[in-house]
Amino acid sequence: MKEILGPSFFIGNHNDDIISFGPGEPDLISIEHPPLSLKRRGYGEVQGEEDLRSALSCRYPGSSPDNFIITNGASEALDLSLRAIYTPHAKILIPRPYYSSYLDCVELSHMDNVFLELQDGRMIEDDVEKAIDGCIGMIFNSPGNPTGIVQSSSVMDKIEKLSQERKKYIISDDVYEDFDYSGPHRQLKGEYIISIHSFSKSFDMCGHRVGYIYATNKELIEKIVRIKACTSMNTNLLAQDFACQVLETDKEKMVTQSQEMEKKGLYMYERLKDLGLELWKPEGAFYLFPKMEDSSRVVSELYYDYGVIVYDGKWFGAPNRIRLSFATSRENIDKGLEKLGCYLNR
Amino acid sequence: MKEILGPSFFIGNHNDDIISFGPGEPDLISIEHPPLSLKRRGYGEVQGEEDLRSALSCRYPGSSPDNFIITNGASEALDLSLRAIYTPHAKILIPRPYYSSYLDCVELSHMDNVFLELQDGRMIEDDVEKAIDGCIGMIFNSPGNPTGIVQSSSVMDKIEKLSQERKKYIISDDVYEDFDYSGPHRQLKGEYIISIHSFSKSFDMCGHRVGYIYATNKELIEKIVRIKACTSMNTNLLAQDFACQVLETDKEKMVTQSQEMEKKGLYMYERLKDLGLELWKPEGAFYLFPKMEDSSRVVSELYYDYGVIVYDGKWFGAPNRIRLSFATSRENIDKGLEKLGCYLNR
Repeated sequence: MKEILGPSFFIGNHNDDIISFGPGEPDLISIEHPPLSLKRRGYGEVQGEEDLRSALSCRYPGSSPDNFIITNGASEALDLSLRAIYTPHAKILIPRPYYSSYLDCVELSHMDNVFLELQDGRMIEDDVEKAIDGCIGMIFNSPGNPTGIVQSSSVMDKIEKLSQERKKYIISDDVYEDFDYSGPHRQLKGEYIISIHSFSKSFDMCGHRVGYIYATNKELIEKIVRIKACTSMNTNLLAQDFACQVLETDKEKMVTQSQEMEKKGLYMYERLKDLGLELWKPEGAFYLFPKMEDSSRVVSELYYDYGVIVYDGKWFGAPNRIRLSFATSRENIDKGLEKLGCYLNR
Repeated sequence: MKEILGPSFFIGNHNDDIISFGPGEPDLISIEHPPLSLKRRGYGEVQGEEDLRSALSCRYPGSSPDNFIITNGASEALDLSLRAIYTPHAKILIPRPYYSSYLDCVELSHMDNVFLELQDGRMIEDDVEKAIDGCIGMIFNSPGNPTGIVQSSSVMDKIEKLSQERKKYIISDDVYEDFDYSGPHRQLKGEYIISIHSFSKSFDMCGHRVGYIYATNKELIEKIVRIKACTSMNTNLLAQDFACQVLETDKEKMVTQSQEMEKKGLYMYERLKDLGLELWKPEGAFYLFPKMEDSSRVVSELYYDYGVIVYDGKWFGAPNRIRLSFATSRENIDKGLEKLGCYLNR
């Protein structure tokens, strides 16, 4: 078996002969991508262009443009946040299964990972309370990747309370905020909440790399900006300009996009159940995460022998599962699932 | 005195009433900045788009596209390189005066700075040999910022030899490669050389944030790509596309740009000498670095009372100097120096 070591093997692989259930690259929203021209030469503000930060602050009641930092996608937002809260020998709590980059990101920031085992994708309040005490903070992600689960309101109440009372940083990965099928998306609030967002998923802007950090803690914001000033400086100006434009997208369009995505998710969920797989019903994001024995072999054989990309649960801390993104066309879903069916019935 | 704490105070400040000798933002080259359209949706390759890496490899004899990583400017290139060579308790040798971000970047990568004192901006071979032994590597920068000095060929021979024989990483900051007034620019070569480059200075593309790493060490390249995969993923695609276009710029245009910059530098150099300042003649880059007592007060008063931006030598490890960028119009140079003259003769 030719083992595939991680998702980066597939990122940026746009071969038309391959059916990809790999990266989460939504293609639903019909936003025009107009040609973009630079408004002015020279560096931009490290914290992000004022117009974009102002537009964002209109979406967060009580916020000001100073509460935002524009980043090279949510990935950089996470990296900068971890570097900013770094404390020697500190531990960060990671719910498992986790998004594959979290572990590496925490390690790269020279802190240690501690795991909180999710129960069928869900956090248990008492478990969080017990586990968080040895940590300086945690990463929270709802709707979750790879689980597709939305955490309950009572868990979120509990986390807000713990964060405030015990001064624990919660890095809330909200990149799937516009794909929450459980109702209006709720975000964590508080002095120690660092919420990270992306334009990639909501507005089909993966390649542009624009995301942002929203936080109310002024000192923390300043620290992150100081780090960004010597690691990447301003986020690319053209993409920020475009991000400013797409923020004006009709709300209805966003709702329709989410509904269409949910329909695809439920369709694929039923089809996978028909194939005999055991999996959770998607409540948000665009991933299905069925159980699958010998997942690394399955990922390799599906790719090399059947031309189908799926991700190995092992990369997300859940061996013997595979992750399938339904952020692809209905036609691709049908073709890919047919191949998957053939493979499973070999 | 209202002390100004660092260069980020001025970055992105584009107030027309202010004369700025601050950031190095060249405006000489007449390259069209056309409107840019995304060629395709989805993420790009983390290592950088194949077409841009191919175009770069044509410029480096014996290289292949695999030797390049496209980054969010030279800043990210430096940050990624340091994170990749990280070793616990390791030290990095930094020639002093240094570019202001180097220190923070080394600290952010959890290593320690050790200084090599430049003599009138120049490295002394024996000093390098002695100092490098306690370090895993060094940052090299020629033409230098803030010194404007080009290091000698014999020093470069020595560094290449030390790097190879003692397995020391040399991160060579070559962002001023197209502004070397000492003759054809020479780059360090070898297995442990990591050279970092930028489109910002050469092609007036600061706000776009495109730079790259060139290295021959395959393992190191792979490690850097793995880090980038979980810290910023692909560099923005529009900017990479533009970078690909500007690489076709006429060589003559590049030479003219450098000659014009040098002329401005020499002009400003003479004018500063006329004002009685002691400084080095520019051999590359676009900075003059005269001695100036009580530099922090001078920087503050020039900005708040005279509307002139200059940088404090303290930010570059050289208190009692100030840095002036001559990457601005001749008109601005005249206006700014007149104000500086008034200030000095108060």
